[in-house]
Amino acid sequence: MKRILVIGIGSGGMQLLTLQAIDALRTADVVFIFDKGEAKGDLAHLRKEICARYCTEKPYKVVEIASPQRDPTGSYEAGVAAWHAERAELAAQAICENLADKRTGAFLVWGDPALYDSTLRILETIKSSAVVDFEYEVIPGISSIQVLAARHKIALNTVGEPVLVTTGRKLAQSFPAGHASIAVFLDNGDGLRSLAGRKAHIYWGAYLGTDDEVLVAGPLQDALERILELRGTLRREKGWIFDVYLVRPLADC
Amino acid sequence: MKRILVIGIGSGGMQLLTLQAIDALRTADVVFIFDKGEAKGDLAHLRKEICARYCTEKPYKVVEIASPQRDPTGSYEAGVAAWHAERAELAAQAICENLADKRTGAFLVWGDPALYDSTLRILETIKSSAVVDFEYEVIPGISSIQVLAARHKIALNTVGEPVLVTTGRKLAQSFPAGHASIAVFLDNGDGLRSLAGRKAHIYWGAYLGTDDEVLVAGPLQDALERILELRGTLRREKGWIFDVYLVRPLADC
Ligand SMILES: C[S@@+](CC[C@H](N)C(=O)[O-])C[C@H]1O[C@@H](n2cnc3c(N)ncnc32)[C@H](O)[C@@H]1O
Ligand SMILES: C[S@@+](CC[C@H](N)C(=O)[O-])C[C@H]1O[C@@H](n2cnc3c(N)ncnc32)[C@H](O)[C@@H]1O
Repeated sequence: MKRILVIGIGSGGMQLLTLQAIDALRTADVVFIFDKGEAKGDLAHLRKEICARYCTEKPYKVVEIASPQRDPTGSYEAGVAAWHAERAELAAQAICENLADKRTGAFLVWGDPALYDSTLRILETIKSSAVVDFEYEVIPGISSIQVLAARHKIALNTVGEPVLVTTGRKLAQSFPAGHASIAVFLDNGDGLRSLAGRKAHIYWGAYLGTDDEVLVAGPLQDALERILELRGTLRREKGWIFDVYLVRPLADC
Repeated sequence: MKRILVIGIGSGGMQLLTLQAIDALRTADVVFIFDKGEAKGDLAHLRKEICARYCTEKPYKVVEIASPQRDPTGSYEAGVAAWHAERAELAAQAICENLADKRTGAFLVWGDPALYDSTLRILETIKSSAVVDFEYEVIPGISSIQVLAARHKIALNTVGEPVLVTTGRKLAQSFPAGHASIAVFLDNGDGLRSLAGRKAHIYWGAYLGTDDEVLVAGPLQDALERILELRGTLRREKGWIFDVYLVRPLADC
């Protein structure tokens, strides 16, 4: 049987690795990395540094799995489904070709594999397609939203209240009413822009846990424009941006 | 100036510690621990083991801060507020008495300080009361809900959809309609019981990350009774229980 470890490496630097993740890296014979096809060289670089530092117990091999672009035409759901199927096929092929029986493969996942990441879904798809069989385990990692909270020194929830974790796309479609705290991943800027005119406090962060980390917090009326400007500039300068934020609507008064 | 580190130690064993948390522990002169006053000897024990293993660079001191019981009479909000004020006072006193200027104190927090933990709020209260001044930093930790997802090998979200993070108390008050995924902390059993008769899939776990870890997953109609029974038995046997779960309502059909 082949063995696969899905390892959350945290959202940011090496320091977010858990002891469990480090132990898992040490057992890896093959490290699989999804190449997002975007200009995310910095992230790829960090992943390689992590391997170089921790996959030291035996010779290991790094296999990049190309990520096809998602087809932006047609419905979002259909686009995601087709993209997902294509990635599963490429991943199955990479596993067949590179992971011998009784060997251990590691999929390195940015942040926590449990939040807005498709690695687990892809592995399930491969397993149920029966193209290649394997056992797998999951190792949690510190998510970007947790780094955001830590840097701003806040809890995500207010006392005893729920937190809605959502995406920029959903937020832009319609504002989720009645939530004390809203955490937003995967925003292309539309989610932020949709907040204009609302009464809320925002805690925003980009490139969290890296040397380029930026934080802004404040009432939306002061902070939103600054965030959008900063976001545009940083994105142009670096070629990509990863940002995440928490919105706390103010009670109506 | 005094320095305080709020350190998330993960929800479970030593293996969930991050490198950042370990580095932070190494700098601590004084370790503060809230004694929850409950029969949570196992957790206190793990915390002490962590200190013994990692607070090694200098002699350090462990200070337990007694936690008063929350007054269960009166409204929930008033009870929590009074309890909070009392804890802040005790914590301020513990800091004054045990942490000299230029020294580093560490508050060890179970899981992630950003989720359903009052340490950050208590430190803010003390700071704004101006009884004692200090700088503080927060180090994120792996939350119990992330260990739950890892053990069940699932993402918390379904593709592109939100996740509502809530408490057993809120869930029992009224079922939050229209959410694809609902993560529930702090349930005394009322939240679980309120799910009876619903069509949903549940992923449940108790004592996660410890030797006593228990997992159950399945459609509610099969799993709920088993979980409630198990929960009752375990709770009686050990004297306490910590459990957390994810509910995925099935689309109406
Ligand atoms: C595909 S999702 C992966 C999330 C990841 N699994 C996690 O737990 O953080 C990518 C999104 O996560 C957020 N994100 C990830 N890393 C980040 C970072 N270092 N700083 C800010 N946001 C980040 C952004 O919202 C980004 O659009
Ligand atoms: C006061 S809250 C603290 C949450 C913690 N800060 C975290 O991030 O997991 C306590 C609740 O967290 C959950 N919890 C904490 N540790 C757990 C564990 N090891 N297994 C299952 N649930 C746990 C339970 O829902 C419990 O009632």
